[in-house]
Amino acid sequence: MTTVHRVFNFAAGPAVMPVSVLEQMQRDLLALPGVGISIFEVSHRSKAFEAILAQAEADIRSLAAIPPHYHVLFLQGGASLQFSMVPMNLLGPGLTADYIDTGSWAEKAIKEARKVGAVRVAASTKADHYTRIPAASEIVLSDGAAYVHMTANNTIEGTEWKALPPTRGIRLVSDTSSDMFSRPIDVEKHALIYAGAQKNMGPAGLTIVIIRDDLLEQSKALAATLPTMLNYAVHADNNSLYNTPPAVAVYATGLVMKWLIAQGGLAAIAAVNERKAAKLYAEIDRTGFYRGTAAKDSRSMMNVTFRLTSEELEKTFVSESTAAGLDGLKGHRAVGGMRASIYNAFPEAGVDALVEFMREFERRNG
Amino acid sequence: MTTVHRVFNFAAGPAVMPVSVLEQMQRDLLALPGVGISIFEVSHRSKAFEAILAQAEADIRSLAAIPPHYHVLFLQGGASLQFSMVPMNLLGPGLTADYIDTGSWAEKAIKEARKVGAVRVAASTKADHYTRIPAASEIVLSDGAAYVHMTANNTIEGTEWKALPPTRGIRLVSDTSSDMFSRPIDVEKHALIYAGAQKNMGPAGLTIVIIRDDLLEQSKALAATLPTMLNYAVHADNNSLYNTPPAVAVYATGLVMKWLIAQGGLAAIAAVNERKAAKLYAEIDRTGFYRGTAAKDSRSMMNVTFRLTSEELEKTFVSESTAAGLDGLKGHRAVGGMRASIYNAFPEAGVDALVEFMREFERRNG
Repeated sequence: MTTVHRVFNFAAGPAVMPVSVLEQMQRDLLALPGVGISIFEVSHRSKAFEAILAQAEADIRSLAAIPPHYHVLFLQGGASLQFSMVPMNLLGPGLTADYIDTGSWAEKAIKEARKVGAVRVAASTKADHYTRIPAASEIVLSDGAAYVHMTANNTIEGTEWKALPPTRGIRLVSDTSSDMFSRPIDVEKHALIYAGAQKNMGPAGLTIVIIRDDLLEQSKALAATLPTMLNYAVHADNNSLYNTPPAVAVYATGLVMKWLIAQGGLAAIAAVNERKAAKLYAEIDRTGFYRGTAAKDSRSMMNVTFRLTSEELEKTFVSESTAAGLDGLKGHRAVGGMRASIYNAFPEAGVDALVEFMREFERRNG
Repeated sequence: MTTVHRVFNFAAGPAVMPVSVLEQMQRDLLALPGVGISIFEVSHRSKAFEAILAQAEADIRSLAAIPPHYHVLFLQGGASLQFSMVPMNLLGPGLTADYIDTGSWAEKAIKEARKVGAVRVAASTKADHYTRIPAASEIVLSDGAAYVHMTANNTIEGTEWKALPPTRGIRLVSDTSSDMFSRPIDVEKHALIYAGAQKNMGPAGLTIVIIRDDLLEQSKALAATLPTMLNYAVHADNNSLYNTPPAVAVYATGLVMKWLIAQGGLAAIAAVNERKAAKLYAEIDRTGFYRGTAAKDSRSMMNVTFRLTSEELEKTFVSESTAAGLDGLKGHRAVGGMRASIYNAFPEAGVDALVEFMREFERRNG
């Protein structure tokens, strides 16, 4: 076997996956062992695929200690489709939903929910260019809100919630697309959790939804009017097999869950993630040559955003780091600068390589 | 390299893919050549993925001779989500859509459209248990219908349209999920064509939509109310990159398109498909031991459905054929019996093996 050249991939998603998972997929690509059919070809009604789906669900449940009165759904369409599915299922006529506006993705969620029903912004840090997560005291919830919606980690702005917001018993809905399973999550404090798989869990094309069973009653009552594919209860009742699921993405995500369990689970991976992020933030804070864009108490462990002293220098940084095998460091155009996405599977050696590159770059340009 | 054991996979979808495509994916799984990142990990905003997407579109356009005033979209959610997206985009208030009811999937399309607006059934062969495609003379279209919807190939019932229905200038919308690119298609006679990729084009998780540009104006006008992810114009304007596309499925489908071009294109593959189907139907008709369920003039080239003289014998046939390495022959529970799905990538050697098995089975049980 020839050695394959791989770069350090700092992309925000789709993002790096564990090499051992890629190697297993490669080994079994022509035919799943004992099945004689590739995962790219296997019928979703086959025993082989049903076992893959059931194992992925079991491992997700075990990793996040999901209580039995929650369903785990394997859907398509990413967080972008969830922005509509959540209000279409939960925001009935006469009801209001509270949204906490912490970044570009929260804004999109709000925009879609407004097409469906009444939305109130319970707090916003837009005036601060989304550089921070609001304090609990800033969050003003509506009496009798249908739910309160938060974005657990803001991929573009590089901020994350360090603790869940107060909800006063209102159903909490969380978009965890960019920090799902990067740290322990208290599922029981949520009514609904959703995440595109393509950052911390697997390849693009799969969306995981964790939904408390009592919410499904509301969806069931909408069966006559809500599009079947957008009805959570349909997918729950059909074990995510109402229609053909994205089988390859389910399989790949299942392998990543096995890898996560082998790493020691969510508390263990959180310790690694904290260490990786701490190394990068320490380098950012070391001299003032680099400037972190997020408030210190809101800094994300997943997406580390920083700027240099000029846009000119930032361009040089991007081109030279890319040439050095550090790929995907250019920040989102909404905030500019640099973004290092260092999800679960991002190797610590890549963080060390970036720190070294930053020091060397500062020496030459500081 | 060890030899991998592969069975003949007659599944209705997800279904068999060309071995050469699987081998290329296997070879490049750890890193796309010259990129250093796996297709499972590559950013959808990267030059590498943009090139993959552009090439897949170019090859689809070339294979089906798609005129420039049509967009090709790469979406998620399968035909099941299209059942809702089509009327949500095209069936405005005060309008009626005509649906031709030729099977279980057409019924589902009708059910979803009725949630959105007024639907008329322009023809139905339900009274004949969907064993045939309606004659042109049976189809009664509404004056000023928003569109007429057809199902090009009925996967469950084993029937297919041999020629397009008359449309009297009404926009034709076709679900081609199970015969897309199995034969030449006259795109210009359609307003919108949609297909889940997982039968003839690639793995599950990708939906191809071919839409005439004038239809996009209607979608644009709905921007304020229609969920963004369900708006065709959004995906057209963003080159299918409004949100993260199912990158692996796009890549795999692109490789299948290259394979199809190498086979000589749609006319060439249609000749192979006709030959494969003719072999099976000839065996079904040979003695009367087997009985084809579809009317002869409506027989599908893709899904060959047949029954035996008793359900007991059918059970034996399924278990013995599976044991002989002929997998997935059990018919859909809605019609019972047997179904051999023989899509583009299904090898002719597998058809020959099934014919041989059928003869031998008849000898022992006839």
